[in-house]
Amino acid sequence: MSSLKYYLAQVERIFNEEQFIFEPHELYEPIDYTLHLGGKRIRPTLLLAANALFGGDEGQVRDAALGIETFHNFTLLHDDLMDRSPLRRGQPTVYTKWDENTAVLSGDTMYALAWRYFLRQPSQRLQVILQCFNETAIEVCEGQQKDMNFEHMTLEEVSIDDYMDMIRQKTAVLLAGALKIGSLYAGAPDDETERLYRFGIHTGLAFQLQDDLLDGYGDTAVFGKKTGQDIRDNKKSFLPLLACSIGSASQKQELMSIFAAKDNMDEEEKVRRVMAIYDTLALRQAVEKAIDDEFHTAIRLLDDIHADDAKKAPLRELLESLQGRKK
Amino acid sequence: MSSLKYYLAQVERIFNEEQFIFEPHELYEPIDYTLHLGGKRIRPTLLLAANALFGGDEGQVRDAALGIETFHNFTLLHDDLMDRSPLRRGQPTVYTKWDENTAVLSGDTMYALAWRYFLRQPSQRLQVILQCFNETAIEVCEGQQKDMNFEHMTLEEVSIDDYMDMIRQKTAVLLAGALKIGSLYAGAPDDETERLYRFGIHTGLAFQLQDDLLDGYGDTAVFGKKTGQDIRDNKKSFLPLLACSIGSASQKQELMSIFAAKDNMDEEEKVRRVMAIYDTLALRQAVEKAIDDEFHTAIRLLDDIHADDAKKAPLRELLESLQGRKK
Repeated sequence: MSSLKYYLAQVERIFNEEQFIFEPHELYEPIDYTLHLGGKRIRPTLLLAANALFGGDEGQVRDAALGIETFHNFTLLHDDLMDRSPLRRGQPTVYTKWDENTAVLSGDTMYALAWRYFLRQPSQRLQVILQCFNETAIEVCEGQQKDMNFEHMTLEEVSIDDYMDMIRQKTAVLLAGALKIGSLYAGAPDDETERLYRFGIHTGLAFQLQDDLLDGYGDTAVFGKKTGQDIRDNKKSFLPLLACSIGSASQKQELMSIFAAKDNMDEEEKVRRVMAIYDTLALRQAVEKAIDDEFHTAIRLLDDIHADDAKKAPLRELLESLQGRKK
Repeated sequence: MSSLKYYLAQVERIFNEEQFIFEPHELYEPIDYTLHLGGKRIRPTLLLAANALFGGDEGQVRDAALGIETFHNFTLLHDDLMDRSPLRRGQPTVYTKWDENTAVLSGDTMYALAWRYFLRQPSQRLQVILQCFNETAIEVCEGQQKDMNFEHMTLEEVSIDDYMDMIRQKTAVLLAGALKIGSLYAGAPDDETERLYRFGIHTGLAFQLQDDLLDGYGDTAVFGKKTGQDIRDNKKSFLPLLACSIGSASQKQELMSIFAAKDNMDEEEKVRRVMAIYDTLALRQAVEKAIDDEFHTAIRLLDDIHADDAKKAPLRELLESLQGRKK
């Protein structure tokens, strides 16, 4: 029986075997830099585990694992440019370390490199696999656009359904796609790949809702950053959206006016007032319940998959580690 | 026998049948706008003609034609952002009409849409075709990087070989790739697809050298813009590079000092002095000779292809129209 750690080690080995610097080096150095910034390598790890779940051979998905992680890192590179984020994993982002044009073009090239990896991985189901990858990529772009749209909208204009749809596309579909692609290479039947895909969606949703919760209620010492940043940024995360939905008319009114005030209010005063409303509503417990619901749906889907329990172990391990995460 | 015009009409029909607006519309409107800015649709037209050259069926390449043009327009969208070009075909570019983030993300999505079109076009040689498309895409990115690198280099630092390699990647490979992909769908033998690819490379090189020549020697009334812009922009085009290569040491020295002076010289004075050196060297004739050489190589390659002369007619037509072009 292989553990999650085993697949992660395989992914690290695959990445260490691969070379990412070609000519012109001005184009490839930022790519090499991005791919070595670290990160959890969760998507290729899931891809390998999903392949093994249905009896696939590891060599059969080596390049696909490279492809999915390269694509993921491309999206981070362009997202950091669009969000003007100076740091990623504690290191300067490409657009800060180099410049905007380098971020645009090296990102485009990373996307093409992701395709190079997928295209050198032969499969009898190539067209279906590549379509799954590509439709996932389109959804990730759509999710990013929706996230950017929310910035220009008021709290009232964003519904919980809209928000769940956005995080599904921006975060969950790529985890789900990695799992589905891994299982497709192994020749899994359609209903099983579909179940695994949905397992990935609900796991991804739970993960993102946890992120939102930690921003409000994380233990700063463990979380590693100051809480309340989403409130300071007027971010329409799950927390204010759920608070508006379960709160009284006057609480909703107060939240909306705080989120609309933007720069006219002292930041810490803003955090204090919003958190006070959250606490009155027992919002933490309500969000924890929503997260648990997603995890339970994911567990049920995993239970329903027809495969050896031993081979499901790494995916259960992942869920358990996520459920307990504090950062 | 079908003419170039016939294939162009087919391409227009294909584009008119297709819908490019989906949700979120903030993402897709700039894509629809870009794809309807006009343009010569030369790449999909070549793809259709190359397919017919080897007896392929038109329906077999409909989506590939959409794919190659969508990819081309994606590269223009991101190039315009990187070059900060306000206009394209007389219309505002996406980054000016919307903003930089829209240009980044709508561009990324166009790239993914190009893949969607290619992936819905079935073929027994799917992997080879998609690899050809993808390696072409990577070369286009590399060519754009080299072009950007030249901006930071002195005239002396760029060799003619470097320049030819840059325009091959930035301009010629996509024309060549379109032709090769069209022929691959028709099941053409490897040596023929290779000949057609090389035909595309030399045609593309001739086209770009013509562009460089027209900037210096175009008839302003026909060319539609002021000549000498490359000189004003200190652009290391084929003209100054060839002039340095065939000129005397003192002429080379003068050109280098003018191109290095950048903003310290009156623009029109700069154009006048550079053109005077070009004229002394009979540069126009030397560049025309280089262009003719590329066209003749292309014609010889087309002659050597084993296919009906009637079916080669559209490609000859293209060469002839290019040879006489004044803008």
